[in-house]
Amino acid sequence: MSDIEERLTFRTAGVIGLGLIGGSVARDLAALGVRVVAYDRDPATMESACAEGVVAEPLGTSLTGLSDAEVVIVAVPVSALRDVLRAAPPLPLARLITDAGSTKRSAIMTAEALGIGERFVGSHPMAGDHRSGWAASRRGLFNGAKVYLCRTRQSCEDAVTGAHDLWRALGGSPEEIAPDAHDRLLAYASHLPHAVSAALALTLESAGVTRAALGAGGRDATRLAGGSVEMWTAIARDNADDLLPCLVALEAHLQRLRAALERGDEASLRDLFRTARSWSFRDGADGSR
Amino acid sequence: MSDIEERLTFRTAGVIGLGLIGGSVARDLAALGVRVVAYDRDPATMESACAEGVVAEPLGTSLTGLSDAEVVIVAVPVSALRDVLRAAPPLPLARLITDAGSTKRSAIMTAEALGIGERFVGSHPMAGDHRSGWAASRRGLFNGAKVYLCRTRQSCEDAVTGAHDLWRALGGSPEEIAPDAHDRLLAYASHLPHAVSAALALTLESAGVTRAALGAGGRDATRLAGGSVEMWTAIARDNADDLLPCLVALEAHLQRLRAALERGDEASLRDLFRTARSWSFRDGADGSR
Repeated sequence: MSDIEERLTFRTAGVIGLGLIGGSVARDLAALGVRVVAYDRDPATMESACAEGVVAEPLGTSLTGLSDAEVVIVAVPVSALRDVLRAAPPLPLARLITDAGSTKRSAIMTAEALGIGERFVGSHPMAGDHRSGWAASRRGLFNGAKVYLCRTRQSCEDAVTGAHDLWRALGGSPEEIAPDAHDRLLAYASHLPHAVSAALALTLESAGVTRAALGAGGRDATRLAGGSVEMWTAIARDNADDLLPCLVALEAHLQRLRAALERGDEASLRDLFRTARSWSFRDGADGSR
Repeated sequence: MSDIEERLTFRTAGVIGLGLIGGSVARDLAALGVRVVAYDRDPATMESACAEGVVAEPLGTSLTGLSDAEVVIVAVPVSALRDVLRAAPPLPLARLITDAGSTKRSAIMTAEALGIGERFVGSHPMAGDHRSGWAASRRGLFNGAKVYLCRTRQSCEDAVTGAHDLWRALGGSPEEIAPDAHDRLLAYASHLPHAVSAALALTLESAGVTRAALGAGGRDATRLAGGSVEMWTAIARDNADDLLPCLVALEAHLQRLRAALERGDEASLRDLFRTARSWSFRDGADGSR
């Protein structure tokens, strides 16, 4: 028995939402021999997931079979987490209930409000990109990915250990963080880049410039704009308080750049580009990644 | 003799500037059996290029040996093109003189002003990214890349044919465009994405968020910020007239996004993200590219 299998002490997992993240979790767990019971609102996704042997038992909208799960992973847009948890049947066997959303403060508050704080630990695997849906899901998605974990005020050690074990079994690197710190960090590290990429796409669309006209760099800069509309709308709304100051700061930097350009101020322009480039390569970060 | 070799009617090429673009041109030409005479201001680059057998004859600062070249490619920051062309010795054998810069209006004006308009055709291979320098150069860089070509008002057909043949031999797809149209298009398609990526990097650096904290999407969105400071400063200044309205338009879209977020206006937010996403996938464009 391998280390990974030893760590997986549960035999049945429930996965709600089989998109990029939930679908990949289900694929990895099934490959590790875990029995996956799952629900997705899209019938075609359910059909594929069962036909491919990933999901052993499809759940109906009542989610009845979820009661068998020892671990429950809810991978839906952050705006839908509350409704899913409220709709779930009693979960007598669940040692860990977790999510996979890009905001954590609201998830923690929801779990505490619903009285499942003891068994809930929030998860955020940093494995998402612009792709979405079951078709984008794949085995090994979490290999090497950082996975932020957030405790509720009641999370028991068994649930926390379970969350660490779950994500490590999927190849991820769990890292605990407070929900507030998480949401502030992610506003800069993920939600702002998406907003900027979307604004850039909107600018190009207004100007009649197609994506096909872009070079490699332009394609990189606009890639996030292709992400799930529903998911990103929910994230932006949920984390508006943290995202708004990021946008204000970005606009200020853009205006600084524009002012230097208007003045023909080569020295300032060079300084700004140099600072941006230095940031790219700091901390051993490879700008090419 | 292959089609490509048949097309290459010249035996000696001069390459000034052995960065990502010039270095890759030199590598490809040398591999095709062309004798490359070259200059780069960085002695270590010259040494490597000779040691690797790419450059047959290193040129001194007087560029004397450039007189042997039948084709001359100047691949330096756009702000340096004029000085290089003025410093060049007489080029009695040169059938084509070209550049590789990201702006074309100023290059065309420079060539015309220096009286070499007949043999000059501006080139812009869409093969650049965030990398720079000889170390980033490689064979096959132009495979499948679009290469914009701009005629001066005096370009002779022999020079134009030579430019098409040159880039096709390197695997590129030449496409003629007027200099004004080129610079306006590239302001949106390339120079704006760089400015946005730089502004995003500046925002993250101000907030103390490192590149290591980013996911795949954030790394994509900030990748261009790692590009050559000198090259991008020169491009932004040279194309300021076209870039400024792009920045204004982008700021307006960002403000629209921010206003929707401030109002908690989910419908508007969703519309904006949906338009951005639709643009990503229009014209058969694959958002994942």
